[in-house]
Amino acid sequence: MAQAQRSASTSVIVDAIRASGTVSRVGLTVTTGLTGATVSTVVRRLIDDGLVVETGRAESTGGKPRVLLELDPTARYAVGVHLDHASITCTVTDLAGTSVALSTHPGPGTRSPAEVLVETAAEVDRLVDEAGVDRSRVLGIGFVAPGPLTSDGGMHRTPPEMRAWTDYPITSELGRLTGLPVVLENDATASAIGEHWAGGTGTENSFAVLYMGTGLGAGLVLDGVAYRGSSGNAGEIGHTTLDLDGPVCWCGTRGCVEVLAGPAAVVAEARRSPDLAAAAGLSTGTSGSEPQPSVVSDLAAVARAAAAGHPGARDVLERSARYVAAAALTAVNLLDVRMLVLTGASLAAAGDIYLPAVRGVLASSLFARGAHPVDVRLSRTAATAPALGGAALVLQTHLVPAPGPLTSPGPLAPPRHGTPPGEPTPLST
Amino acid sequence: MAQAQRSASTSVIVDAIRASGTVSRVGLTVTTGLTGATVSTVVRRLIDDGLVVETGRAESTGGKPRVLLELDPTARYAVGVHLDHASITCTVTDLAGTSVALSTHPGPGTRSPAEVLVETAAEVDRLVDEAGVDRSRVLGIGFVAPGPLTSDGGMHRTPPEMRAWTDYPITSELGRLTGLPVVLENDATASAIGEHWAGGTGTENSFAVLYMGTGLGAGLVLDGVAYRGSSGNAGEIGHTTLDLDGPVCWCGTRGCVEVLAGPAAVVAEARRSPDLAAAAGLSTGTSGSEPQPSVVSDLAAVARAAAAGHPGARDVLERSARYVAAAALTAVNLLDVRMLVLTGASLAAAGDIYLPAVRGVLASSLFARGAHPVDVRLSRTAATAPALGGAALVLQTHLVPAPGPLTSPGPLAPPRHGTPPGEPTPLST
Repeated sequence: MAQAQRSASTSVIVDAIRASGTVSRVGLTVTTGLTGATVSTVVRRLIDDGLVVETGRAESTGGKPRVLLELDPTARYAVGVHLDHASITCTVTDLAGTSVALSTHPGPGTRSPAEVLVETAAEVDRLVDEAGVDRSRVLGIGFVAPGPLTSDGGMHRTPPEMRAWTDYPITSELGRLTGLPVVLENDATASAIGEHWAGGTGTENSFAVLYMGTGLGAGLVLDGVAYRGSSGNAGEIGHTTLDLDGPVCWCGTRGCVEVLAGPAAVVAEARRSPDLAAAAGLSTGTSGSEPQPSVVSDLAAVARAAAAGHPGARDVLERSARYVAAAALTAVNLLDVRMLVLTGASLAAAGDIYLPAVRGVLASSLFARGAHPVDVRLSRTAATAPALGGAALVLQTHLVPAPGPLTSPGPLAPPRHGTPPGEPTPLST
Repeated sequence: MAQAQRSASTSVIVDAIRASGTVSRVGLTVTTGLTGATVSTVVRRLIDDGLVVETGRAESTGGKPRVLLELDPTARYAVGVHLDHASITCTVTDLAGTSVALSTHPGPGTRSPAEVLVETAAEVDRLVDEAGVDRSRVLGIGFVAPGPLTSDGGMHRTPPEMRAWTDYPITSELGRLTGLPVVLENDATASAIGEHWAGGTGTENSFAVLYMGTGLGAGLVLDGVAYRGSSGNAGEIGHTTLDLDGPVCWCGTRGCVEVLAGPAAVVAEARRSPDLAAAAGLSTGTSGSEPQPSVVSDLAAVARAAAAGHPGARDVLERSARYVAAAALTAVNLLDVRMLVLTGASLAAAGDIYLPAVRGVLASSLFARGAHPVDVRLSRTAATAPALGGAALVLQTHLVPAPGPLTSPGPLAPPRHGTPPGEPTPLST
């Protein structure tokens, strides 16, 4: 297992080149602490594999000019697919994590999972072609879905509006349809990774994202590593208890923030006011326990009504924001993070109400304002961060070996779910 | 910084020998993945430093018998001091983390921090002498106190009954008095580390401890690493919001589990019933916002009354347990851990009420019972785990280098607080 050491050296060097943009071999020995011999060997292999290119020479302080190295972003590609009740977003990214093709289509609605995956496979093919990407350079697909997920590569505990997906073997089916390895990640964690790759979290290495789409979840990056928990289901902030005697949630306990104040609760409350429902343009045909057609678009309609000055709409959202902020405070107190990013389609639509509410509650707490302020910010890439995060996971899985002795897991460790890559990894280890 | 690689190899080898009990050099190459040459070099240095001894020979499968290595537990020692409002516990442990001397004294009461630290320094001297430990082998002191702590080596946000300690420079003062380096850790995190070293968490590498002494906190070990958060104050589960319109907590927000149902709230509620107060033997002189003399001993008295069949005492504790269980569920949903250990003096005293309450709530939740059961257990070493964890931190700090490139942080990373060790580390790196 000196192999583990070589893999570790490779991942450290790839990360260092990516972080530097361009860097010389000597620069790599300085930033990585590896010997010149190790750096030379690993860089030679990366050049042979086409991942790194020599790109020019830098003036040196005496002696001969140094050859500069950089990643070749076109050497490998990855696909990210984000399945939400409201929409399906696909992206193709290059090795640097930059999106080279992107599409958004309506959510699954009443179509079967099998039908949706056939369409998704066709859309992946179309995007790869559209981007002019050599298919042999596509490493795999990161499939992003609402959690909780299972180690069998599917969704086991589905929210009510996605019951048809329960235990459907997403990774094996999509893998079969596309011939690509598929890894699975939940939307909140993928958002956190996507925000990080898109630069939305700057240099912060411990942060949480509060993800509100159809449901409510948190993505956690702790001490630089995406934290997934013992079964890959960490971050279930939607099931933070806020009222011990509150209504029963679909998770089985009472008074969760999701049942009290999540998007479906907001829309249901808005629908109970005929005046507000009419002003926002909500359908009034269904109510009670029936799944709603698109919670996300209905919540966005309520947010538009609030922005247009409808006081009832504002009240409904502010009530929700008060609960969501309390759950955010609990998470920040438990995790001691310096940054919280609000993301997901619902928070993107109503951020002007949720952002000040969360900031206000965090500012009122000794802990949150004590040792350091908590930077609460709205995502600028809420719509695309989950799909981008899915693609980034594929790159990570292939470029960074699994943690082991002498291995730093790198900024974002590989995911636990999904089929193992069906092809040899591009880096010889 | 090839030094970083040598340090990493040293820590990996020390951990492997500790985990194996006895192991040969060849065995170390297998378990660590390091080359035979690296293992030989590092082991030679560890033997020269006296940390590792050759202890016999094992039959080999053909060829000559292999020399077995083990840690010399008497090679180095560490001190753990646990300061709580109710008591001060000191321990001296050997290199294997086994306690070789232990004492418990009354808490600080009305004595000044300066006075308490002078007494503590004398007690440390006495214990080191009593155990017959060569003082030059004592690496330092791990000082454990209620959080939140500061990076200056003191307590900044103190609970009401320990206000005199606010911003008192604990680490520098105790360091001056003893001549030993002092690191600071909060009680809940130290408990988690102590439980781990004492074997109370088995092979589980992600777990939380719910610590209830005078206050309420959580210690988190995630993916094998003690998680402290960005300012060392992770785990503030006591300030989980459970009632948005509840009473104001000393932390600045409303309806925290600590103000609703923490030990002080339990004792205050018990004291409001003259019958219960008399049955439990509580003093009735003070009430309201005044700090109580010893919340922990009063809570233990209520627990004894409940065990003796006083229905009011049982009601008071069960009401508290219901809130504490809801906070535990929120933490488990967010962190996705498979194990929760209930510890601290208050939970040790009333575990027969809190344990079934926490188990019941976790069993009612889809998430907690979904992908895997959550093993909720009562600590068997609640009284000593924090001090033991403090000593273990000192051993970790000296034996495991800080995380860096190519460094696995080991099972428990060194703490962020406190003065840097004043002596050279025992391992040449």
